[in-house]
Amino acid sequence: MSFQRWKEDLIELGRLGRKTPARIESYDQLAPEKGLFRLEGTEEIRKSKEYVMARMREAGLKVRIDKIGNIFARKEGSKTNRGAVMSGSHLDSVLNGGMFDGPLGVISALEAVRIMNDEAFENERPIEVVIFTGEEGSAFKKALLGSLILVGKMPVEEAWKLENNEGLTLKAALDRLGLRGDFEMDLRDVEYFIETHVEQGPVLNQEKTPIGIVENITGLTWVSAILEGEENHAGTTPMFGRKDALVAAANVVLFVNRRAQEMVREFGGSTVATVGRMSVLPGAPNIVPGRVEMGIDIRDGIEEHMSNLMEEITGRMKDLEAECGVKTSITVPFYHLPHPCSKVVVDTIEKAVQEMGIQARRMNSGAGHDAQNIAEKVKTGMIFVPSVKGISHSPMEWTNWEDVERGIKVLTRALKDLAKLRI
Amino acid sequence: MSFQRWKEDLIELGRLGRKTPARIESYDQLAPEKGLFRLEGTEEIRKSKEYVMARMREAGLKVRIDKIGNIFARKEGSKTNRGAVMSGSHLDSVLNGGMFDGPLGVISALEAVRIMNDEAFENERPIEVVIFTGEEGSAFKKALLGSLILVGKMPVEEAWKLENNEGLTLKAALDRLGLRGDFEMDLRDVEYFIETHVEQGPVLNQEKTPIGIVENITGLTWVSAILEGEENHAGTTPMFGRKDALVAAANVVLFVNRRAQEMVREFGGSTVATVGRMSVLPGAPNIVPGRVEMGIDIRDGIEEHMSNLMEEITGRMKDLEAECGVKTSITVPFYHLPHPCSKVVVDTIEKAVQEMGIQARRMNSGAGHDAQNIAEKVKTGMIFVPSVKGISHSPMEWTNWEDVERGIKVLTRALKDLAKLRI
Repeated sequence: MSFQRWKEDLIELGRLGRKTPARIESYDQLAPEKGLFRLEGTEEIRKSKEYVMARMREAGLKVRIDKIGNIFARKEGSKTNRGAVMSGSHLDSVLNGGMFDGPLGVISALEAVRIMNDEAFENERPIEVVIFTGEEGSAFKKALLGSLILVGKMPVEEAWKLENNEGLTLKAALDRLGLRGDFEMDLRDVEYFIETHVEQGPVLNQEKTPIGIVENITGLTWVSAILEGEENHAGTTPMFGRKDALVAAANVVLFVNRRAQEMVREFGGSTVATVGRMSVLPGAPNIVPGRVEMGIDIRDGIEEHMSNLMEEITGRMKDLEAECGVKTSITVPFYHLPHPCSKVVVDTIEKAVQEMGIQARRMNSGAGHDAQNIAEKVKTGMIFVPSVKGISHSPMEWTNWEDVERGIKVLTRALKDLAKLRI
Repeated sequence: MSFQRWKEDLIELGRLGRKTPARIESYDQLAPEKGLFRLEGTEEIRKSKEYVMARMREAGLKVRIDKIGNIFARKEGSKTNRGAVMSGSHLDSVLNGGMFDGPLGVISALEAVRIMNDEAFENERPIEVVIFTGEEGSAFKKALLGSLILVGKMPVEEAWKLENNEGLTLKAALDRLGLRGDFEMDLRDVEYFIETHVEQGPVLNQEKTPIGIVENITGLTWVSAILEGEENHAGTTPMFGRKDALVAAANVVLFVNRRAQEMVREFGGSTVATVGRMSVLPGAPNIVPGRVEMGIDIRDGIEEHMSNLMEEITGRMKDLEAECGVKTSITVPFYHLPHPCSKVVVDTIEKAVQEMGIQARRMNSGAGHDAQNIAEKVKTGMIFVPSVKGISHSPMEWTNWEDVERGIKVLTRALKDLAKLRI
């Protein structure tokens, strides 16, 4: 730990995929124009993965690549070759992203294994460090791709046909970079999974709590709504009798925001609901809007709350048909259930922080992570570390080094604990 | 009147500038794809003006063109050559417009003079039928252009430099079509002006009132507002502590709508206020909006109400800074005062409808018209006829022939009355 190998690794990875590949070692070196563009299929992602694979091999791990390019690095168990403990995350970034989202979880897992090596810790179960392919979906348009294939929710042959903006298929891209393998990981051989990640929200940073223990990866649904009123001349159409689609839409925006706040107050939960996309048509200042298209993002750790809120919102829209003289229609492009984390894993992380005297809080993950796919087959947990100012998916994303270090310590202790056989 | 010359004129003009120049004689022949594109500078506007000038000359009128292309056709007065009575409108259309907005006012004035000829009516004051240049601003980007020059609010040399989308200056366009003259109309020689126009709104049509007598051409101001909050991840940013620019903007939309409605109830006036333009940024469904740009259109016949409403709206935006954690800024690209119509002219029209037993109502004009410029120098009034379903600036614009006819009768009677000398 004293070498801060992990810090050097994160700084090195932080250079790859930046337009100006400088070493960024502190928050004050960040700048909006210094974002990462480390997409699957690029030379930079290849360099990143090769950098990490070299470190994995140095640590004595056996590296294998599967058909979608997921990388697994194995430390054999002393008592069994089944029921592995897996940990890791991804190395690809969003467009103009930051240097912690993904790499932090990969390097934390790698460092945990290196610490076990240093301490000559004997893990009874095998340990697998994993790098998932294409978590962000920024190149091949499908998020959480590597874990999706791993749990069998999408056939790998279908994923290979995905194309990036240059029209290159994922298969051709993996082949070009030498990152397509033929290893097949069987998740029945994996007992536990922990993903360490930056929170990407403001809670830990604001509360000055260094560790978040994720209880649920929240469910997520989008409601795409169209409100149709009647386009009219803003000067000659009296206030009464208008069918103003924007007035109806504004009511929806305030309803969504108010009800989500009320649900947080009522249930103390993690409900969030947001209207992020809204087009007002025709969009001329002197025409009463005839049509509004809007996208509503609803997330909750508890499925019932999520579906109730969705129902309330669609009900409010129906009421607005009479109130504002509009017609409304909705589509739901997807509805992802919340993924509860494993009680065993959550309790193990909780025990680790307590024994180490580190302050922590239980929380939900509002963002999507590969862990939510893995949770369908494997007992899964997540460790969050604070994001400075809650910023993520931005060149200004930062996590203080002492928080990274604490995260690694907690992860290491939890992995050690899980790597012991229990009767 | 039995010949329905005016109807033939309107149908003929309705052919010029349509992609398929068919004669449209009834409402059921209208179609969204059959709109008019009769812009200043085009061959079609030349044909329209030459058609009307030919009819003016047939009626014995003396036709003159001024430096901006306004056309005046004079019937001399029997007792004076000063203090003329002027009537008319414009022939240019919006992009994809209808066949009544403009031509109706020109042909009504022409027909009034033809009726006087038929009746051998002796007008003591001269009568001037006018065709204003570029009312819509659709080609040279400046609305109410001909009247603006006529009242001296813009030097003609400046207007000549305006360019259309092809980069042709207005001066070159007028020269090419032979529509630039050197006549100078002195408005000190004009005593009264009446513009007949389609209402462009639903009031007369809904009330089944055939004639609207305009009391005020409403004032108009635009408030361009920017609301800046904080862009954040929709999943990881808790409901409390967000700085959602769209939530603030939705409050503005509802406030604008509610207060305008309340003012109509309180003062019984013609207040209208509309948010027609709104951009939500960055506009991704999973990002809390960081910025909203919006355009608010406020109109009222009474200047005090208009300025009060504007003040209330900007005050509400200031309050929202604290409520929603946003910063707001506004600009006011223009502030046009209401233009009251002349009491003498309004009373003359009122007397005409009463004597003819035609139902009428007083109202304001929510749209802008050349009459509002002329009103600054000349005693002005407007006669409105119903727009079917309130539709205008659309290929579906229509006014029933019997309503056009009634409008012509009322105009004729009012012009005759005004053309008499009073002591």
